[in-house]
Amino acid sequence: MTAKAKVLYDFSAEPGNNELTVKENETVTITNQSIGGGWVEAQNSRGEVGLVPEDYIEVLQQLPSFSSAAPAAPTLTQGHVTAPDLSFFDAFAPASAPAPNQTSNGNDPWSTWNADPSGGSSNNWASNPEGTQTGKSAAPDPWGSGHPQAYQGPGAEDDEWDDEWDDRSTGGYPESEAGEAGAMQRGAGAHTMKISLNKFPFSKSGPELYLLSKQLTKGKERLPIYVGEVGPVWSYPETPVDCVVADPKKGSKMYGLKSYIEYQITPNSTNRPVNHRYKHFDWLYERLLDKFGSAIPIPSLPDKQVTGRFEEEFIKMRMERLQGWMTRMCRHPIVSSSDVFQLFLTYKDEKDWKMGKRKAEKDELVGVMVFSTIEPEAPDLDPVEVEQKCEQFSRFTKAMDDGVKEILTVGHEHWKRCTGPLPKEYQRIGKAFQNLSSVFASSGYQGEATLTDAMTEAGKTYEEIALLVAEQPKKDLHFVMETNNEYKGLLGCFPDTIGVHKAAIDKVKEGDKLVAAGKITPQDKVGMAKRVSTMSYTLQAEMNHFHSNRIYDYNRVMQLYLEEQIKFYETIAEKLKHAHGQFTTM
Amino acid sequence: MTAKAKVLYDFSAEPGNNELTVKENETVTITNQSIGGGWVEAQNSRGEVGLVPEDYIEVLQQLPSFSSAAPAAPTLTQGHVTAPDLSFFDAFAPASAPAPNQTSNGNDPWSTWNADPSGGSSNNWASNPEGTQTGKSAAPDPWGSGHPQAYQGPGAEDDEWDDEWDDRSTGGYPESEAGEAGAMQRGAGAHTMKISLNKFPFSKSGPELYLLSKQLTKGKERLPIYVGEVGPVWSYPETPVDCVVADPKKGSKMYGLKSYIEYQITPNSTNRPVNHRYKHFDWLYERLLDKFGSAIPIPSLPDKQVTGRFEEEFIKMRMERLQGWMTRMCRHPIVSSSDVFQLFLTYKDEKDWKMGKRKAEKDELVGVMVFSTIEPEAPDLDPVEVEQKCEQFSRFTKAMDDGVKEILTVGHEHWKRCTGPLPKEYQRIGKAFQNLSSVFASSGYQGEATLTDAMTEAGKTYEEIALLVAEQPKKDLHFVMETNNEYKGLLGCFPDTIGVHKAAIDKVKEGDKLVAAGKITPQDKVGMAKRVSTMSYTLQAEMNHFHSNRIYDYNRVMQLYLEEQIKFYETIAEKLKHAHGQFTTM
Repeated sequence: MTAKAKVLYDFSAEPGNNELTVKENETVTITNQSIGGGWVEAQNSRGEVGLVPEDYIEVLQQLPSFSSAAPAAPTLTQGHVTAPDLSFFDAFAPASAPAPNQTSNGNDPWSTWNADPSGGSSNNWASNPEGTQTGKSAAPDPWGSGHPQAYQGPGAEDDEWDDEWDDRSTGGYPESEAGEAGAMQRGAGAHTMKISLNKFPFSKSGPELYLLSKQLTKGKERLPIYVGEVGPVWSYPETPVDCVVADPKKGSKMYGLKSYIEYQITPNSTNRPVNHRYKHFDWLYERLLDKFGSAIPIPSLPDKQVTGRFEEEFIKMRMERLQGWMTRMCRHPIVSSSDVFQLFLTYKDEKDWKMGKRKAEKDELVGVMVFSTIEPEAPDLDPVEVEQKCEQFSRFTKAMDDGVKEILTVGHEHWKRCTGPLPKEYQRIGKAFQNLSSVFASSGYQGEATLTDAMTEAGKTYEEIALLVAEQPKKDLHFVMETNNEYKGLLGCFPDTIGVHKAAIDKVKEGDKLVAAGKITPQDKVGMAKRVSTMSYTLQAEMNHFHSNRIYDYNRVMQLYLEEQIKFYETIAEKLKHAHGQFTTM
Repeated sequence: MTAKAKVLYDFSAEPGNNELTVKENETVTITNQSIGGGWVEAQNSRGEVGLVPEDYIEVLQQLPSFSSAAPAAPTLTQGHVTAPDLSFFDAFAPASAPAPNQTSNGNDPWSTWNADPSGGSSNNWASNPEGTQTGKSAAPDPWGSGHPQAYQGPGAEDDEWDDEWDDRSTGGYPESEAGEAGAMQRGAGAHTMKISLNKFPFSKSGPELYLLSKQLTKGKERLPIYVGEVGPVWSYPETPVDCVVADPKKGSKMYGLKSYIEYQITPNSTNRPVNHRYKHFDWLYERLLDKFGSAIPIPSLPDKQVTGRFEEEFIKMRMERLQGWMTRMCRHPIVSSSDVFQLFLTYKDEKDWKMGKRKAEKDELVGVMVFSTIEPEAPDLDPVEVEQKCEQFSRFTKAMDDGVKEILTVGHEHWKRCTGPLPKEYQRIGKAFQNLSSVFASSGYQGEATLTDAMTEAGKTYEEIALLVAEQPKKDLHFVMETNNEYKGLLGCFPDTIGVHKAAIDKVKEGDKLVAAGKITPQDKVGMAKRVSTMSYTLQAEMNHFHSNRIYDYNRVMQLYLEEQIKFYETIAEKLKHAHGQFTTM
């Protein structure tokens, strides 16, 4: 199970992340290739062991038993398109290869764009922009710091660990398989988890792959962008795609030794349910990320939890969040109409599913090449305008990320108070009234009953209020938290998406220099400007899609929150009125 | 200013109370006679200095400059009645003299009656049963632990410290004068304060003074007790006495060098206002305590505060509490109809006041001798029944004291939460909504305004809720706290009142033994049984008075609390409805 590997680029370990610093041309021994998420564990010549990005090394030799599990980079796009020669790419390398700190900073992907002067929330990015779900994030709290509903999952009855029922020989989602195993190995004791480096496939190669590709593949895929009232917009289907995630069922295999949960997904198009396990969602996520990640923020799946006791609650919570994720994907016109997404929703049988999987995994139009399928029906944009738009989106998403985190932090504290000390206090008030009432009842004085009955009633009312207070967050704050948590995940994808654009803009700026140096032709330069315009239209269409969804979502969640809050206060007032009526009028 | 004194009884210092352990017949030097509250500071032959109950020592010599301020025990009743010989009293001493721990335990006067198994509230008895107000308690929190409305008083503008406008040569209230000086000397730095030992005058001499007095003074005073529906009751006046305490005014003397606050008290009988300073209330309190304390619990005056900044709030608070105290005194048929109370309410001029004061201070029917004026219009009670009643009242008042303290503890914590962390949290929620709204407003996306306006409104609503939450305790919990605090003070008087009865019952039980020993005659024994029956009627009338007032007070305060709570929740619901209406309907 060991293999030697040559280090392709310098990599500086981040402290506390179990990483290993390696130098270009150094030879290391791979000690564990099953870490997942774009990482391998390697040992250097001094015997030090740590994690290294797998794209930073080139495997020199490996044992046969290893080869079947050893993932190639999930999307080796170079082989599939008419790519510039590699020496040309090397010339770009210093500028376009992601700096290790830039890509491995799981705590704040914004930090490479903006220094965060707010000093506000220091939440972890529990939902990391890409690939976190493939087994790396063991943080038990999807809301950043111990959200009470962060159920711990079904423990030994892990529904993700055991093997897949379908054919493994397809080589399907090796990442996720490895990731799951890795997560189990590292378990809950590991406090620092790597974010996935799945973004490497598209960000490492850089936008040049698209900007300078000699000849764009002409396929059946064609993604038009129109200019609507709000600016560039995607083409939206007349009947929006939707689906219902429901009815989680425990399945088992290997004569009941291993069990898993299957969810039923019913799309509105066929109204015919299909079954999927979490790992299938994960496979879908990986495919969508590979295919659209450069252009469209693909939010992470809800966190994978592998330990815990509250199985039913956990499954309910996961289902709710898978529903949320699917709804968001369905709402996206490009994602929801893609072959892979439609396969997931409407496959007919196992054979159909397997064939569809193979086809999806062989898709060549992934990474930055997705831009080659996009056709804006509008004149090319000036590069200056492109840059301005990009900066504006960067500022907005960063600012909204801060705002969302603030709400999550405040909401989390409020949740704790409402479910902890506050109801305890109301309960104690209720008990104190009832105790005093009992004392009064023992006075032996005539005409005591009216007061003691009323005081007991008032005391019980405060005990009821305690329950109401403790239950209320589940009815209102929960949705505020879930929505903002979803947006935190979504916003976490933007730095990378915007990063691809910034890199493209930088390349276009270098156009004259590259022409002068004979690296590219003047035609290449013109083509680059045209293609960066297409990228900008894409980003704008995506931002407009984001804004329109955001307005809808926040309008809805705020209304729901306020409605439930009103009910809450009115219910308490009603209860108090009843208690008040028990006292005699003076 | 020093005087030698002989120690009359053993006294064991309580740890942490600055007390000095002394032995009978030991000679000590009095180093400070101005401590007040029945305490003096003394030095023993080993040079140790500490507080000793002044009733435990006998001053042997003192400098002339000292004599005018040196208080005799406030009510040396022995001189005024036909008392048994002192050697006889000595025979009773071990049983009836208060054990030092019993009387100096300021934390829990109940502890001598019942061991407290509840382990519940550990409040200090901020309002001590007797005499605390005469300058000994510097605890700034009348509710036990830092109640936010425990204003610190007017500081240098102390209205109690300066001299009295009227004639000091009467020797009026030396206790309170000394107490005030003492309080100033010890200041805020002293954490342990002595409770007053003013109860000594009536409890030290014991009930024998009354039980065995040869001949009861026949005066015009006659306090009948009738048997009503609920049992023995006082005779209630047809028109209940009432008064309004209002209009606090700053007065000054010594050419403005010293200032004080005068309150206007208007009784319903004359409707003519009289003016009194706090020290006059204090004088009244001392007189009532001396006269009725053995039979009727006389609650302490509201705490005296001598330092602080919020003068207006302090004066308002004190006035409110003086009103509460006066109302309670007015409601009591015996207290309110007494000469001294009527003098306080209706004196015509300064001369009238001075004469009335002198007369009140010369009153001989004080201490246990008040029972000699009480005439139950019912057959004598069996001593067994007397004891049962006494035990029942003791249990009830102890249980109610626990219940009241529990409410005070819980209420105090709730007050802190409602004025501290909770509104801060609502404020932060409000800010978070508004911040996110600002971010949204910066999106540049069309049709943003409806959502951002609504979210800003919702945010402001939560800021308003924060204010409502913080202000609410003053509107409702405040009265719950004040009422329970008043009852805590009142209940704190019962152990002593009941103690007098218990001591009397014990004496009656010893009747046969005393007759056999020739200490008393058989007629004495019969007289004792009759007189303890009178004491029991008194206690029962008092308990029935207490119960009827309690039912009224708690009915009223609970209704007020619930009414204000209902308004509170309804107001919040209304505000939220308004905020909700700002969002667009989906």
